[in-house]
Amino acid sequence: MNAAFQALNPHTGQPFGPAFAEADSAAVAAAAMAAAEAFAVFAAKTDRQRAELLEDIAGSIEHLGDELIRTAAAETALPPARLLSERGRTTGQLRLFAQLLREGSWVRAIIDTPLPARQPQPRPALCQMQVPLGPVAVFAASNFPLAFSVMGGDAASALAAGCTLVVKAHPAHPQTAELVAGAVRQAVARCGLPAGVFTLLHGRSHQVGLELVQQPAIRAVGFTGSFQGGKALFDAAARRPEPIPVYAEMSSTNPVFLLPGALQQGISPLAEAFAASVTLGVGQFCTNPGVFIVQDNAESQEFIKVLGEKLAAAQAGVMLTPAMAEAYQSGIARQRQHPGTEPLTPPPAAGQPTPHLLKTDVPTMLEYPELTDEVFGPSTIGVVARSEAELLELARSLSGHLTATLYGLPQELARHTELITILSQKAGRLLFNQMPTGVEVCHAMVHGGPFPATTDARSTSVGTEALYRFTRPVCYQNWPDALLPAALQAANPLQLLRKVDGVFIR
Amino acid sequence: MNAAFQALNPHTGQPFGPAFAEADSAAVAAAAMAAAEAFAVFAAKTDRQRAELLEDIAGSIEHLGDELIRTAAAETALPPARLLSERGRTTGQLRLFAQLLREGSWVRAIIDTPLPARQPQPRPALCQMQVPLGPVAVFAASNFPLAFSVMGGDAASALAAGCTLVVKAHPAHPQTAELVAGAVRQAVARCGLPAGVFTLLHGRSHQVGLELVQQPAIRAVGFTGSFQGGKALFDAAARRPEPIPVYAEMSSTNPVFLLPGALQQGISPLAEAFAASVTLGVGQFCTNPGVFIVQDNAESQEFIKVLGEKLAAAQAGVMLTPAMAEAYQSGIARQRQHPGTEPLTPPPAAGQPTPHLLKTDVPTMLEYPELTDEVFGPSTIGVVARSEAELLELARSLSGHLTATLYGLPQELARHTELITILSQKAGRLLFNQMPTGVEVCHAMVHGGPFPATTDARSTSVGTEALYRFTRPVCYQNWPDALLPAALQAANPLQLLRKVDGVFIR
Repeated sequence: MNAAFQALNPHTGQPFGPAFAEADSAAVAAAAMAAAEAFAVFAAKTDRQRAELLEDIAGSIEHLGDELIRTAAAETALPPARLLSERGRTTGQLRLFAQLLREGSWVRAIIDTPLPARQPQPRPALCQMQVPLGPVAVFAASNFPLAFSVMGGDAASALAAGCTLVVKAHPAHPQTAELVAGAVRQAVARCGLPAGVFTLLHGRSHQVGLELVQQPAIRAVGFTGSFQGGKALFDAAARRPEPIPVYAEMSSTNPVFLLPGALQQGISPLAEAFAASVTLGVGQFCTNPGVFIVQDNAESQEFIKVLGEKLAAAQAGVMLTPAMAEAYQSGIARQRQHPGTEPLTPPPAAGQPTPHLLKTDVPTMLEYPELTDEVFGPSTIGVVARSEAELLELARSLSGHLTATLYGLPQELARHTELITILSQKAGRLLFNQMPTGVEVCHAMVHGGPFPATTDARSTSVGTEALYRFTRPVCYQNWPDALLPAALQAANPLQLLRKVDGVFIR
Repeated sequence: MNAAFQALNPHTGQPFGPAFAEADSAAVAAAAMAAAEAFAVFAAKTDRQRAELLEDIAGSIEHLGDELIRTAAAETALPPARLLSERGRTTGQLRLFAQLLREGSWVRAIIDTPLPARQPQPRPALCQMQVPLGPVAVFAASNFPLAFSVMGGDAASALAAGCTLVVKAHPAHPQTAELVAGAVRQAVARCGLPAGVFTLLHGRSHQVGLELVQQPAIRAVGFTGSFQGGKALFDAAARRPEPIPVYAEMSSTNPVFLLPGALQQGISPLAEAFAASVTLGVGQFCTNPGVFIVQDNAESQEFIKVLGEKLAAAQAGVMLTPAMAEAYQSGIARQRQHPGTEPLTPPPAAGQPTPHLLKTDVPTMLEYPELTDEVFGPSTIGVVARSEAELLELARSLSGHLTATLYGLPQELARHTELITILSQKAGRLLFNQMPTGVEVCHAMVHGGPFPATTDARSTSVGTEALYRFTRPVCYQNWPDALLPAALQAANPLQLLRKVDGVFIR
């Protein structure tokens, strides 16, 4: 008998709803095998056929209607308005990938025409394009039960690339996961595709995930979650007889540098915006600003004081799971006991993830790197630098982050070239005068960054570029034109933008 | 005192020339530190400045004149004509990367313009481009003492990407390495760049390499060599506190499928071409055809017989190092003792890497996967399939390779869609009616492939796409236009092809 579990009410910690069986080894292996068999079929479909699947899935998710929103709200304590907007993001990114596929140039067709008369040796006809890697394992995130869960950014980008999927549901919202999975299964069937294109697995134990990444058929892994979870999957994948890439989006405190000019523009509105970013979604965003840096002066002292007041006055909210609420409590308790720090908000009461502000200085941050560990939830640390040199020293000490933000006047930004250079090596996205929370799904987005923000700084998990995590190039040499994939045929029947003899043409 | 070593004469095994000191831990750390400091300067240079460096290096290598060719010939036993052509490839690829940089669109600029009036939330201005990863460790290959050594494909692509370099010389050609390094150092100085842009380390022990990939400053690794060497570096890099990507090009036997129509066109010319590919450069090519598959019929029996005669009649040549010659001997001896195999050439005499042909069948190959292990040198295995089903079974059992080749009539190729689908998942390059040896340096080349051919199937180590192994995307949000990198500014001052709101325009 497999172990079974239920969703927990985030408000009460009480189990509710149907029981879900923990996937056993046989189920994991069967899912991977089905994904491998379906890959042979799915990879051979045209971009247009894949676009139709993505669009069908989007419609199918919308068709779930209020039941999906109600279920997700009950399992996550996220408000319906947020979930509605998240559903829009989920279906929007599926349709954006469909657009990308319909246009078709995403395959990066590169053609070098033959030079039969070249001396001393002729050049053969060579051409390459991106092809899907194979079956992909996706781990649903807890904090976006729609947009980064069963059919979120990882799953959508892998399907768009032509990969088949085994998705590990997040145990914090299994009913939501099942609803979405049902919608996906219907779309897969309507499109005449084998069921193995998409399989959902449930599980609360780490074992399910570790077994999944070790399946020989799995060719890549997408993950959003904790550092411990992501790193364990990365290590397991690297130890396979045949290692595979793992795209784990893990831990980031998203440093915000508030330059003096920013504070001179008015302290209260900035503190208000910052508090809103810290507390957005009960602080459960990957891009939550967990640390900010100011220079020591009257305005920055005032800013920290006002921010503390605003955070102390903010509502506590309910975290996604009781376990997260506990982890938040103990993380804050650890921080508050730390030498060299000064709490500016009261300690959270038991079970109350009240927003939190800790004040410290650069020497303390440099001496105790554990202060930079992410405390998932509505907390932030204000670091006061006594000089610009200290500020640069702190910047240099940063590990990898998803984002780094500067607030200030444009002329201040222009003066801080060294700081910007340092930050551009630490983060995937640099923001000016905007809070890091809020991740636009578009072509230019980078939601990624150097380790430990992710395990692969060369990638983004949000935006259309995310699909290149799941592709590889294949080159054809001296291949008969008629037998090449359409994307590479001389007549360019798909009208793609291609690089031909080093020049981009359509 | 550091251990020291000399080059060995490949003909005699005797040491000759100056002694080279094994880099100790302090030297390795200093090189990585220098590369990190120089990176701050080098990464800030324009593409044009980087192009000038690459071109200066190319000229500087040419300026070494005959001394380079003589030295490389003495250390590797490769004939001067081959080394001259390899030098042309080396300088040619440096200049091809320079061209790519001067054109500039390689940075993949992607811009999403702001939508201030969008409801419910405005879209901010977002843009991204590729930036260099940081200092890169490159391991010189033995078999291309110029084109894949100190300033070969890995080094050139890393410099082109804007990364600084620590190169580990191959101990089989240390004098050649020093000559090229001297030329590079001169070019670096002439371009006014810090010396840390390029550091050469010597060493025969694995320790030097393992220490190098563990330096915190090193952000990526390029390697061409044995499976054992590449996998050890991959494992060491994955175990770092902060893992880094390793691009190791390792082990490939490059299967060639000779369909019946190919043999019906004339057995002797095909056997001649195949024997030439097997013995090219004493079989020391990564793309050497180490296994071929035929269907059982009169023509294929004849082909194997004729090929055996041609290989038996071919000259032995001299391998790059005495150790490689020994490894070839023992590899062939192991193969010859294997049940189910039939040698069709005599065993190589001691120290004589004579070409070798072994015949076997599909069941034997499937039962003994060790037969698919690469034996580096002029040997190949002919596998006779009794049916098309057996042929497909063998194809499915293949691990990753750099290349997979089909010989046949175009209409035969058209019929073998399943075989092609399988092979496209096993190799980075698919060839039709051409031998896999000979790797064109161009835009469309893929010299890579699934594990164990490489540790990263998403990449190529030859051709201009190779530089993306050493880059990552960075995104700017709401950044003042004037402070953006020129590649991303609204006016497009560099005249790049960019993706703006999803559309490619210049």
